[in-house]
Amino acid sequence: MTLSRRLTAEFAGTAMLLAVVVGSGIMGETLAGGNVAIALLGNTIATGAILVVLILILGPISGAHFNPAVTAAFLMRREIAPGDAALYILVQVAGGLLGVAVAHIMFEQPELFFASGKERSGFAQAFSEGIAAFGLVLTILLCLKARAEAVAWAVGLYITAGYWFTASTSFANPAVTVARAFTDTFSGIRPEDAPAFILAQFVGAALAVALARYLGAGAGKE
Amino acid sequence: MTLSRRLTAEFAGTAMLLAVVVGSGIMGETLAGGNVAIALLGNTIATGAILVVLILILGPISGAHFNPAVTAAFLMRREIAPGDAALYILVQVAGGLLGVAVAHIMFEQPELFFASGKERSGFAQAFSEGIAAFGLVLTILLCLKARAEAVAWAVGLYITAGYWFTASTSFANPAVTVARAFTDTFSGIRPEDAPAFILAQFVGAALAVALARYLGAGAGKE
Amino acid sequence: MTLSRRLTAEFAGTAMLLAVVVGSGIMGETLAGGNVAIALLGNTIATGAILVVLILILGPISGAHFNPAVTAAFLMRREIAPGDAALYILVQVAGGLLGVAVAHIMFEQPELFFASGKERSGFAQAFSEGIAAFGLVLTILLCLKARAEAVAWAVGLYITAGYWFTASTSFANPAVTVARAFTDTFSGIRPEDAPAFILAQFVGAALAVALARYLGAGAGKE
Amino acid sequence: MTLSRRLTAEFAGTAMLLAVVVGSGIMGETLAGGNVAIALLGNTIATGAILVVLILILGPISGAHFNPAVTAAFLMRREIAPGDAALYILVQVAGGLLGVAVAHIMFEQPELFFASGKERSGFAQAFSEGIAAFGLVLTILLCLKARAEAVAWAVGLYITAGYWFTASTSFANPAVTVARAFTDTFSGIRPEDAPAFILAQFVGAALAVALARYLGAGAGKE
Repeated sequence: MTLSRRLTAEFAGTAMLLAVVVGSGIMGETLAGGNVAIALLGNTIATGAILVVLILILGPISGAHFNPAVTAAFLMRREIAPGDAALYILVQVAGGLLGVAVAHIMFEQPELFFASGKERSGFAQAFSEGIAAFGLVLTILLCLKARAEAVAWAVGLYITAGYWFTASTSFANPAVTVARAFTDTFSGIRPEDAPAFILAQFVGAALAVALARYLGAGAGKE
Repeated sequence: MTLSRRLTAEFAGTAMLLAVVVGSGIMGETLAGGNVAIALLGNTIATGAILVVLILILGPISGAHFNPAVTAAFLMRREIAPGDAALYILVQVAGGLLGVAVAHIMFEQPELFFASGKERSGFAQAFSEGIAAFGLVLTILLCLKARAEAVAWAVGLYITAGYWFTASTSFANPAVTVARAFTDTFSGIRPEDAPAFILAQFVGAALAVALARYLGAGAGKE
Repeated sequence: MTLSRRLTAEFAGTAMLLAVVVGSGIMGETLAGGNVAIALLGNTIATGAILVVLILILGPISGAHFNPAVTAAFLMRREIAPGDAALYILVQVAGGLLGVAVAHIMFEQPELFFASGKERSGFAQAFSEGIAAFGLVLTILLCLKARAEAVAWAVGLYITAGYWFTASTSFANPAVTVARAFTDTFSGIRPEDAPAFILAQFVGAALAVALARYLGAGAGKE
Repeated sequence: MTLSRRLTAEFAGTAMLLAVVVGSGIMGETLAGGNVAIALLGNTIATGAILVVLILILGPISGAHFNPAVTAAFLMRREIAPGDAALYILVQVAGGLLGVAVAHIMFEQPELFFASGKERSGFAQAFSEGIAAFGLVLTILLCLKARAEAVAWAVGLYITAGYWFTASTSFANPAVTVARAFTDTFSGIRPEDAPAFILAQFVGAALAVALARYLGAGAGKE
């Protein structure tokens, strides 16, 4: 697969992912009449479903990372070249921003991008993101070894659980975190809270790489 | 497979699809006590589930299009003959109307068909439909190449997400749009708003055909 | 597989199915605080999920009918002997009753069995049951031919949709209908309304056998 | 697979399971505004999803028991050595406690562990747990024989149903029961109510081993 196709897949996939995360958040909040749990249910179902779809259809092209923490994990395992990894991360972030803009157009928001005012700060939130990314990367690495054809399902289901079991609703993805800083809707995060999330996500990913290696799912099989 | 069997499958499948879309919309709205998000949840779960079922069971017979935009995509790829495509679209629309009538009988609506009064107009709605159909056709074309046995799941999950992430709730299907103009219930659309939806759906489908080709999932494998 | 094992599987499977249908109905109604849509969501998710499980684990033993209309369909196709079919139906009804009693014990209902007072009468209700059983049997017969390994999923998803798209919530099963006449809870049905449901279910099943044959999924492959 | 890796998998898997059960319970209760059914929906979806994930990724390493009643069932079938079984149970309980602590940190609870005040007593509750564990172990044993590759799905779906069809919401797991005694949140259980739950779970598991053997899924194939 040519690099340009791989980058196109990462760009389009991350854009679609963010359009779904942000769009379904707006839809849920708009319709749920103040019941946040119901809004989150809609947000969860849409996000989990689209992740399965995107990984099924784009996995054979780019690996379907859509996530700098996942790309970093494969870099630690030397399963992606450093230059390719840098380009992956670049198009993931760009794709995420496009997805936010698409969601804003669909839902007639006043601006293509506007900074979120939603506070997500403090140790417990960052700790949640570390757990979320740890579990996500562990799921990917172990599932690639145990049942590679099931990775799309495992990731979709993991994030489905993640929206509910972590206090931060499992962003678990630095590109998603950056993009969500640009929407002042249900799924937003204040720009000043993003760095702690992103740091925790990379730390969680690194720990997952280590545990996967100990459990026998080291590099050599992607 | 004979053409008459294929057309019967398209007719029966689209009828069942519309019975579910319209019927579960009525059920949701009736039971949800005014909470539209809960009504949409029921509508979503039913629609996503039946799509998986219908594509699993009718896919081997007709390809399980149930959707003129999908048939048009295969026509652009020269994977269906023009005459067959025209008949497919004809029976899809007819089947959709039957499905609406069946739902109306089940839920004791006053008429078999009655024009919807539900406004779904404006650029953002049509843009949403373009995105919805683009994503649907891209999902089908890429999944047929990447994991043909998973297409039923990918489509069901894509529409599950679509009901929530697009402002129009992802009709994504001209036959569905026509049929839903004939029900003045939860899932309806005013007849005068249908043409913009349908145009946007065909445009989205054409763009998906182009992107799929670029990503290496061109015609030659259905 | 010996007949006694097959009958045990039908008995245990139908018992578990009814324990779930009735139990989750009580749970939903108790917790939902009057919002019937939310109660039905819980009822739906539980029923769809257990059907997948029961067909996965008992299918290889008895065929996992759990449903006299399904057994009758296989009898019409001469894929089960008449004597075996009679015994299947007998243990399905007995198992269903056991399941109701188990649910009543778990939820501390006043009696093991008590007649339902829930009216489900009129043409639209019976028509709904005909549609529900038609779709269920068609799903089973076509899926057995198209993708036999996916039948458990197709049935679970079909009933998931059925709970929402039919006005009767898709009993679609004479043994389930008899059993639900003995519970005066969320999922009950008045005994006097049961015969019309059961008749419609058998009619729907017969029509599905005919359509499946036309579509090329006649007997000879189970 | 070395014993230390197997024990690590059991420990990590049970910890993740409890983090999800307890964490999603807190999230659900916090967001649902008093509607317990909606809280339980979130709790259900998260728990069912993570079970599929954990069994997919850790099954090849340790068998993915995460449950002393399951380990006991394999011990009765002589498919695990008594010493290994004891160690499995030990790390399951320890992992469960870690998971509770992780959930409490994520959701800023006042203590890492605090005894639950949630009453779950009486015959009907214990009977529910017997049914829950019976069904769970039967599902695992029959599915391992019928469709080993589907066990992860069967267990996730079984517990999804179990949260709704049993009056006790299907703990169905002694390690989970012990751990949940240490959280005074949505998913808690008073310590004094735990022993009856655990006893019923082991009885249910033993009955399932017997029925599985009768149905032809005796030991000899794990």
